[in-house]
Amino acid sequence: MINDWQQLLDGMLNGSVRNLGRLITKIENRDQGWLDAMKTIHSNGKNALVVGITGAPGAGKSTLTNRITRDLLARGKTVGIVAIDPSSPFSGGALLGDRIRMGEVSNKDSVFVRSMATRGALGGLSVAARDVVKTIDAFGKDIILIETVGVGQDEVDVVKTADIVLVVCVPGMGDGIQAIKAGIMEIADIFVVNKADREDADQVVTDIETMLNMRSHLDPWIIPIFKTTASTGKGVKALVDSLLYNFEPGCKKNKVKENMVKEEIFCLVEKEVARHVRSNWNKNEMFENIVKEVINRQRNPYAVVEDMIKNLFNLGNYQ
Amino acid sequence: MINDWQQLLDGMLNGSVRNLGRLITKIENRDQGWLDAMKTIHSNGKNALVVGITGAPGAGKSTLTNRITRDLLARGKTVGIVAIDPSSPFSGGALLGDRIRMGEVSNKDSVFVRSMATRGALGGLSVAARDVVKTIDAFGKDIILIETVGVGQDEVDVVKTADIVLVVCVPGMGDGIQAIKAGIMEIADIFVVNKADREDADQVVTDIETMLNMRSHLDPWIIPIFKTTASTGKGVKALVDSLLYNFEPGCKKNKVKENMVKEEIFCLVEKEVARHVRSNWNKNEMFENIVKEVINRQRNPYAVVEDMIKNLFNLGNYQ
Repeated sequence: MINDWQQLLDGMLNGSVRNLGRLITKIENRDQGWLDAMKTIHSNGKNALVVGITGAPGAGKSTLTNRITRDLLARGKTVGIVAIDPSSPFSGGALLGDRIRMGEVSNKDSVFVRSMATRGALGGLSVAARDVVKTIDAFGKDIILIETVGVGQDEVDVVKTADIVLVVCVPGMGDGIQAIKAGIMEIADIFVVNKADREDADQVVTDIETMLNMRSHLDPWIIPIFKTTASTGKGVKALVDSLLYNFEPGCKKNKVKENMVKEEIFCLVEKEVARHVRSNWNKNEMFENIVKEVINRQRNPYAVVEDMIKNLFNLGNYQ
Repeated sequence: MINDWQQLLDGMLNGSVRNLGRLITKIENRDQGWLDAMKTIHSNGKNALVVGITGAPGAGKSTLTNRITRDLLARGKTVGIVAIDPSSPFSGGALLGDRIRMGEVSNKDSVFVRSMATRGALGGLSVAARDVVKTIDAFGKDIILIETVGVGQDEVDVVKTADIVLVVCVPGMGDGIQAIKAGIMEIADIFVVNKADREDADQVVTDIETMLNMRSHLDPWIIPIFKTTASTGKGVKALVDSLLYNFEPGCKKNKVKENMVKEEIFCLVEKEVARHVRSNWNKNEMFENIVKEVINRQRNPYAVVEDMIKNLFNLGNYQ
């Protein structure tokens, strides 16, 4: 088993796309030994630029991802794409069309495309997406694009793991400002107004500018707004220029990294604590009795939690 | 401030709908003192039957909720409704139509309707939904219906907090079986094939039966399938009969309660640990240095997490 991991890792680090794919699958499945594999992968990380691309359904994210990829390839960069499918219990496979549309770039040698389902990711979607991104990074892609529809907290959490978050708006969907209101504002590093050939595109730009001005006192960072027409490729070059600017030393990417690593560590700790708590207390007889008392309202769960936390942290003065 | 809580709680427990609404808002906002309020609310719980109603968009959940409510009212039961809006960053307010359609029942005195957004719930959507349900329970409603579109893990988690989960399928959407495949199967206590006047309704019933037979060796519990036509009310009476059967002593509801209380406690512990970890380590200088080492790849985050967990649990032999 360990040999298997070692072979896959060696092969992947030597450039085998096939090993890269199999490795990701094994890590996604949390096959025994995945943690050690992730340690190796982390030490072999090459600091790819990770770009999250999100926006409403129909905003043209896939076409834009396609165009950005082609532009990057033309500049000699290698690209990885992680496509998050919103395969919910009910709308499973809705993004199949997107994947087909993305086929154009995914067939090129220097692009590695991986689809992930939003459901059933062990340890949570954002943890799973981080694992995939790290593995593609260790493989050696210069830039990794995470494309996800911006619906649901899970997807937003995934996008937060990117170095740069690109929020795609389109005219005529009435969602430019709505998206901003609903909390995407805080995570957008770059706005893209796609389908900019439509006549109401400038209004969307103005709306975004107004919103950004309203909060400019909170954050001196200037969030650029790009207009693109992904279907023709117009405006994509300037957008890619601005993405590549992030490879310069001392730029935003490095500042953000610290918060991202903290977030990653906190996330891993929480998942691990959750696992620990569940496995230790689920079969505990005393806990079974406490549960019965909660059901009978002799105890309340909030006080139980306070006690458990004190016990967990081994602290008398937990606060 | 404490007086304020006390007044609201007293008023709510004495039947003030207005206080109930304000109390829920304060709890949702995690206003100081919310935990003590929840303790009071828990001790005043009256064990309402909580029914989760979920299904694909367009399955007729709102109409069905409306019909079930009217049937319950006709039997002299009081009803609370928690409607979960999938107000994602991009599709905010999509369910406004549903709320309007639900207006018919929500205006009656004996129905309390509360809408919740899926985004921005402090402590997570399922925790927030539990709080709301508990408060309505303490208020004294006999039956609480949670209506949510079955898209996204968050919504599925909410539905899991119900005593009885009702999964609504419809013919002609090709999602009957798909829903089951994608993991709703495990949480469905009752299947409803709505729009049963359509000719392919029986096929959906057959599909569900086939799936249920395939797993019948796993769980001896028999999951009923009801056919309804919510638009006319046909079939709703039998469905409500089966819901009310759960008030009988010794039935499934009581068995399930234990797992639900465990899940609630685990959830609260996890949120609390997460809060503790973030607030204690975020400003810790040693941790800042560790983060820098992770960025420089001198350390890997997985080993850091192992150390943190050991430290957290104060255990030498943590496993």
